[in-house]
Amino acid sequence: MVQARLRVQKQGNGHCTNVPRNVNLEKLQSNYLFPEISKREFQHLDKYPNAKVISLGIGDTTEPIPEQITLSMANYACALSTSDGYRGYGAEQGNQALRKAIAETFYKDVLIKDTEVFVSDGSQCDISRLQLLLGSKVTIAVQDPSFPAYIDSSVIIGQAGDFQDKTGKYQNIEYMQCGAENNFFPNLATTPRTDIIFFCSPNNPTGHAATREQLQKLVEFARDNGSIIIFDTAYSAYITDDSPKSIFEIPGAKEVAIEISSFSKFAGFTGVRLGWTVVPEELLFSSGFPVINDFNRIVCTCFNGASNIAQAGGLECLSSEGFQAIRSVIDYYKENAKILVDTFSSLGLKVYGGVNAPYVWVHFPGSKSWNVFAEILEKTHIITVPGSGFGPGGAEYIRISAFGQRERIIEASRRLQKLFSQEKQPLLNSV
Amino acid sequence: MVQARLRVQKQGNGHCTNVPRNVNLEKLQSNYLFPEISKREFQHLDKYPNAKVISLGIGDTTEPIPEQITLSMANYACALSTSDGYRGYGAEQGNQALRKAIAETFYKDVLIKDTEVFVSDGSQCDISRLQLLLGSKVTIAVQDPSFPAYIDSSVIIGQAGDFQDKTGKYQNIEYMQCGAENNFFPNLATTPRTDIIFFCSPNNPTGHAATREQLQKLVEFARDNGSIIIFDTAYSAYITDDSPKSIFEIPGAKEVAIEISSFSKFAGFTGVRLGWTVVPEELLFSSGFPVINDFNRIVCTCFNGASNIAQAGGLECLSSEGFQAIRSVIDYYKENAKILVDTFSSLGLKVYGGVNAPYVWVHFPGSKSWNVFAEILEKTHIITVPGSGFGPGGAEYIRISAFGQRERIIEASRRLQKLFSQEKQPLLNSV
Repeated sequence: MVQARLRVQKQGNGHCTNVPRNVNLEKLQSNYLFPEISKREFQHLDKYPNAKVISLGIGDTTEPIPEQITLSMANYACALSTSDGYRGYGAEQGNQALRKAIAETFYKDVLIKDTEVFVSDGSQCDISRLQLLLGSKVTIAVQDPSFPAYIDSSVIIGQAGDFQDKTGKYQNIEYMQCGAENNFFPNLATTPRTDIIFFCSPNNPTGHAATREQLQKLVEFARDNGSIIIFDTAYSAYITDDSPKSIFEIPGAKEVAIEISSFSKFAGFTGVRLGWTVVPEELLFSSGFPVINDFNRIVCTCFNGASNIAQAGGLECLSSEGFQAIRSVIDYYKENAKILVDTFSSLGLKVYGGVNAPYVWVHFPGSKSWNVFAEILEKTHIITVPGSGFGPGGAEYIRISAFGQRERIIEASRRLQKLFSQEKQPLLNSV
Repeated sequence: MVQARLRVQKQGNGHCTNVPRNVNLEKLQSNYLFPEISKREFQHLDKYPNAKVISLGIGDTTEPIPEQITLSMANYACALSTSDGYRGYGAEQGNQALRKAIAETFYKDVLIKDTEVFVSDGSQCDISRLQLLLGSKVTIAVQDPSFPAYIDSSVIIGQAGDFQDKTGKYQNIEYMQCGAENNFFPNLATTPRTDIIFFCSPNNPTGHAATREQLQKLVEFARDNGSIIIFDTAYSAYITDDSPKSIFEIPGAKEVAIEISSFSKFAGFTGVRLGWTVVPEELLFSSGFPVINDFNRIVCTCFNGASNIAQAGGLECLSSEGFQAIRSVIDYYKENAKILVDTFSSLGLKVYGGVNAPYVWVHFPGSKSWNVFAEILEKTHIITVPGSGFGPGGAEYIRISAFGQRERIIEASRRLQKLFSQEKQPLLNSV
């Protein structure tokens, strides 16, 4: 952005429109986390052109999609060349068979109907569509740390005040601290009421899956306050223990929650683009007007359905064989996570996550996370994510992604162990 | 929506949240055009269960996609099952090869760079993302009649005032009348300045392609007023004469225009979902800040890239063989359009469009378009689109889509001729 500003100033005689820049976009901080990490990686490669960089940074899937799933997409695509197989616009809400399969696969016990399932091109996109639904007048709370899109979309739609350099927070957004000290669950007794509560479990970045008891408290809190929870379950397939995989497992949640989810990390569809959002009919605005009606309108006006090829793949993921094949990929990533957890634990560090999530969250008490990030990159050529990129609550942590080929995970583990054995706890000095 | 309201009232004891409904969504008129037409179609089928309904309503492609294009998507999908072929997240802005191919295919002569091309999942989605970019404070103008998404997205983001039943218009939106009386181009001398001007050419619904002279006037108007034109070229592949296919053919347009376009009608990708938006570097907000920087941020935060399988197909569409194969499908639809134009013309009606566009716009002076729609449906089992669904400027028109299998177009033509010959100009009485 600095470059662009300079270029404009140089143009000098260029024509400016009289259209004012959106004040909400002016408020957004320019160093969006992942582009910043990419920039640092490029700089590192400039410095060390022969370095074999291992990226445990952005949470991007790396393993092939099981063949029967890609074949279903290939067959669907090929059929588009035939008179019988050609399909144009599908329903904006998603193909009925897929909506039904999602309802039956993930929500059978909690009685979510297929008509309450809206197929999307991914959770991140639906977060912004939910913001269009809610508008600029609602108040929001987020976990701190949290996935940046909740806050950034809130700023873009106009819910937030100015960013405060001193606190690292936007005004008018409630940051609910979730750290090791409170078992990654906010102190609700001191949390002010907001209209909307974004909550991600298993959490990105901390890897913590909220317990049933925690979620019961959350739902109770939302009911008492008349709030709406936007519950992000993009990583629920990684849950091993008995933590709820859906907010709708909690009695009373249908009247206070929307759930967003995704095929991205569940089926390696990060590039294929497919997700869904559940809006229960029971969820009502203060006037009694059903939220689902407005979300349906947003989906019809601001979206036009996910690619029908991706939807064909999604449907195959939910067949019994497809589902089983996907599980083995998830197990692979979870074994990676275990290796990473063991590595950091063996080095005497406090490690969280990695059990119910593909993310490992490592604590470096007293350190600044960008310094830890920089030191690990400099000395091991491994990309991580500095926790402060997820909010001030992540200031002393780094996030390690367990997505990756096994040999690279093992090599990363080796390099990290070497670094720590050579320099006794060097990272604790990166204050 | 009436049904939903009733259900809520019946629930009585249900839990309402304390979250207020978004006032912008409250303003939106509930009878969104295409769902309303679907409803009428269902009602018609209830009444005439054996009717062979021909839909010339929604502009949805019907012909198979050329095989080499679907094969490229199938191959891409299959490769996702291999270690070498697997790809996760792509760039949010689109794969570089596709951005380059779009720039070279459509914008070579006007020197648009690949970095100014943002690949999307379709124009309708990008219209809403552009609204997120612009925010609620800008003023907008639309052609009247126009594609409903411009106005509806404007209402959703908060640019519009209340809907006025008397005029059929929202307050704070400038409706630029475009009818036969002014060669479908607004009288700019009497058009007030707005920040944003949505302009669609070839136009949906009128089928009119703006001439070079008209677009020169439009660009001059925007430059004089410091406005930004959002130019929708979703139908530019249908242009036969020398009307510009891109706003950037007009000198000075890069400093005042954004262009949105799509593979939907160009390549039959309505269900595959692929489009693009061009934001030139020269386009600046009043402060001198480049619009492209903010749009890039919106794309990174509110979108996560189009499906990589769809993008593989898009790239193949732009190969020389792919492009040629697509042309023959477009020619097929254009021959359909000619049949429909000839049919209505031979019946003594004033017919517009159909030459540079897949839409035929038929004038029924003194009639109300929903009545014409109803009478044609009742007597011929043909679905059309009432012009008033596109704004008050369409009140005396109906839109006929030329997408369809040839035999159905010929059958529709036969039914229409029969209707008109049996009842001398019955539709002129549908006031």
